[in-house]
Amino acid sequence: MYEMTIQLRTDGEKCLYEQIYEHIRQEIREGRLLAGERLPSTRSLADYLQVSRSTVDYAYDQLLSEGYIEARPYRGYFVCPLEGLLQLGPEGALPGEPVDAKEEDASRPEADGCLYDFSPNGTDMSVFPFGVWKRITRNILNDGNMELFSQGEQQGDYDLRLTISRYLHASRGVSCTPEQIVVGAGNDYLLMLLEKILGRGVRIAMENPTYKRAYRIFQSFAYEIVTVDTDRNGMLVSRLRQQEADVAYVMPSHQFPTGAVMSIGRRAELLRWADGAEDRYLIEDDYDSEFRYRGKPIPSLQSSDRNGKVIYMGTFSKAIAPAIRVSYMVLPERLLERYRRECYFYSCTVSRIDQKILNEFIRDGYFERHLNKMRKRYRAKHDLLLECLRPFRKRFVLSGEDAGLHLLLSARQPIGEEELLRAARERQVRVYGLSDSLVASAPGNATVLLGFGALDEDAIREGIGRLKEAWLQPSAKWI
Amino acid sequence: MYEMTIQLRTDGEKCLYEQIYEHIRQEIREGRLLAGERLPSTRSLADYLQVSRSTVDYAYDQLLSEGYIEARPYRGYFVCPLEGLLQLGPEGALPGEPVDAKEEDASRPEADGCLYDFSPNGTDMSVFPFGVWKRITRNILNDGNMELFSQGEQQGDYDLRLTISRYLHASRGVSCTPEQIVVGAGNDYLLMLLEKILGRGVRIAMENPTYKRAYRIFQSFAYEIVTVDTDRNGMLVSRLRQQEADVAYVMPSHQFPTGAVMSIGRRAELLRWADGAEDRYLIEDDYDSEFRYRGKPIPSLQSSDRNGKVIYMGTFSKAIAPAIRVSYMVLPERLLERYRRECYFYSCTVSRIDQKILNEFIRDGYFERHLNKMRKRYRAKHDLLLECLRPFRKRFVLSGEDAGLHLLLSARQPIGEEELLRAARERQVRVYGLSDSLVASAPGNATVLLGFGALDEDAIREGIGRLKEAWLQPSAKWI
Repeated sequence: MYEMTIQLRTDGEKCLYEQIYEHIRQEIREGRLLAGERLPSTRSLADYLQVSRSTVDYAYDQLLSEGYIEARPYRGYFVCPLEGLLQLGPEGALPGEPVDAKEEDASRPEADGCLYDFSPNGTDMSVFPFGVWKRITRNILNDGNMELFSQGEQQGDYDLRLTISRYLHASRGVSCTPEQIVVGAGNDYLLMLLEKILGRGVRIAMENPTYKRAYRIFQSFAYEIVTVDTDRNGMLVSRLRQQEADVAYVMPSHQFPTGAVMSIGRRAELLRWADGAEDRYLIEDDYDSEFRYRGKPIPSLQSSDRNGKVIYMGTFSKAIAPAIRVSYMVLPERLLERYRRECYFYSCTVSRIDQKILNEFIRDGYFERHLNKMRKRYRAKHDLLLECLRPFRKRFVLSGEDAGLHLLLSARQPIGEEELLRAARERQVRVYGLSDSLVASAPGNATVLLGFGALDEDAIREGIGRLKEAWLQPSAKWI
Repeated sequence: MYEMTIQLRTDGEKCLYEQIYEHIRQEIREGRLLAGERLPSTRSLADYLQVSRSTVDYAYDQLLSEGYIEARPYRGYFVCPLEGLLQLGPEGALPGEPVDAKEEDASRPEADGCLYDFSPNGTDMSVFPFGVWKRITRNILNDGNMELFSQGEQQGDYDLRLTISRYLHASRGVSCTPEQIVVGAGNDYLLMLLEKILGRGVRIAMENPTYKRAYRIFQSFAYEIVTVDTDRNGMLVSRLRQQEADVAYVMPSHQFPTGAVMSIGRRAELLRWADGAEDRYLIEDDYDSEFRYRGKPIPSLQSSDRNGKVIYMGTFSKAIAPAIRVSYMVLPERLLERYRRECYFYSCTVSRIDQKILNEFIRDGYFERHLNKMRKRYRAKHDLLLECLRPFRKRFVLSGEDAGLHLLLSARQPIGEEELLRAARERQVRVYGLSDSLVASAPGNATVLLGFGALDEDAIREGIGRLKEAWLQPSAKWI
């Protein structure tokens, strides 16, 4: 490894990190440090130079951001090829990923070298009406409306809430006034706010499998989480009754990850359960109800709620774009009162400009048009995937079709999930195990999720072709 | 009051709220309901029609949003003048305020008829570089960079964190790597996140008076809050030691609302206190350090921290615009580890587009230029206000000068705060009592806050002139 010889001056003219940064930069520019060469670890260099580790971190960050070096996960820092440096624009774009990208989201493993990533979280941005969004943004800024830059209402701008309430009424049968809506920057934030509204010591019931992020969030609230068994109609209310839960978290229109739709009877039972005690509530996470490809739209649970028991949550991150950090919840009257009494000081987390852009996007019909386009696009992918999966049916049970952005395959034989994933990975295909969504043990054979949102038709065909080789060839050891 | 006679049909062709809405609209259009006439309350109409209250709410909302009626706080709903209706553009702009505006922020009382509002929270938007902001936004959207619409890193985009770390290093002496920074939509959200990092049962020490919003937020966390007395150097660490607190929340560079600057000695004492146990931390809220008009800049407490004890928090809402919902916190190494272990799944609450705009705004030097302009502007107002307050010095003690966006006047005689506020209000001037910031009882005479951020020079002169009449005239009963 390269031996760093650097004279640090402590006369204060230049701070330490700058001296380190400039020294290394010079070494690279003058060819003493060559492309692909590994730099000492920040810890060892800090020890060697007798400076704090953050000083070295800072120097390396600067080199990283200017593209002189790159970080390779778990391996260290390496000098970038010189061509790479010459190609660098004035923007200083990073040739590699930022140093901590690998640590960002453990729930979203990288496709490390996989060519076909069937992530259930992928979305298709190719039909995003970029031009419209740009135009609306430009017009709003051109209006020169200074008031946009002032602080808005805590629950979100009234106009946006009115628009959302109308949209929800028309598309989901949700009956609410704009006063009941709270707008926030993502579901995670809204759940945090809900924690403050519901108060301490909540015992929450969840299905198994369920949406793992919500589970982790409730865990971080120190909620007592109980899992309730399900059948094909949804959460078993008889079991729920045994659990003495206060709140049940459900996804009645399209359960994640199973794709199950809660039956009308089960909904009525759930609502009756909630009616049974004053402080019982249902959280209805209606995360992707926009994408249903066959049959009648499934009405929201909230639309059947007569006694103010349902907290309805939705988001625009799925239906518009993941970067649109706007979600909303509809609070029943009693919780709304509590919110106003106890949480009124929490200011809105979405900027007014973003609220206004979104409001016009929906109000002027672009959202609906976009949804129609997306639905058509996703349906085509869904149908293609279904078609491609036909040969799998002998050995796998297929489920979760007709809605959402993924399908499920469950092995008919006893195979380990990890075996399926590994065989896929060997052919550079990434699929996702149901175990990612389990919050309690579950019997049964391995099940994998195949998301199709972000893949185009060719990628679906090729990816499934490779899965066929991986899983259906006579040489596969479970055959 | 107008008597509503309306036949509701329940054949399902039109939903109830639509029938109510259409009926009232018709009545207004045909002149049976006249401008200024009061509608029945939603409750009484709901009772009368035997429908749910939200049905009537919904009908009224629709009428409100279309400008047929307006809501007057605490009084009810009134029919709008017909001219108003005719002036309505296709935007459907509301002639009145939305129905719940009055309820939005109890901590920010309305200036109800006051002409001169010396709010300490007001900011001056007149020099906001609207053109630059627009241009950056346009360029970013024009780049057509789809990646902008995908979900970014949990802690915030690396580029922005790098820019913030450099800015903090240069302007506040904060020593941190981009890895230590967490970007979030406002301080409130970041405190919520910090709650998850610090865990349960935290005993937190606050000054008295202090920033009331933070106090309310800690209350909503069910933190045990202890108040610690202060002298002119800041929080009394000897008292803090008696309290067995885990965390102390301080504003060393410019305490809100007193404006006190914590002395170097007291800072060292505080850091020593924090060093005394593994899980002790200091939250440094550096909310408006950008605005200092005289003397050397006050370095951050974080810059003196050698053992990773300071959680540094800052925001762009004050320095750029209240609508810019971007704040940041710098986590010491140990808490960063905890964050990554236990909170990695919380997604970032700021959209990538906003992050990129802000990043370019700072990186390309506009932020600094804007700050210089703002500082100059606020200094001029500050100096003028100081000058105007000269005649008050006989009867009041002035404090909090040379920094921030407000000054304080404390009565030399025993006068009630409410008396001062009322006398001001009678002359249509709104000033703010120190009691808004008290979290425990405090001895001493009435103190009022005079904010100057949002007022122009004429308003300051005229407002203070009126205060002179209100408070210094021989007829004033405390003279």
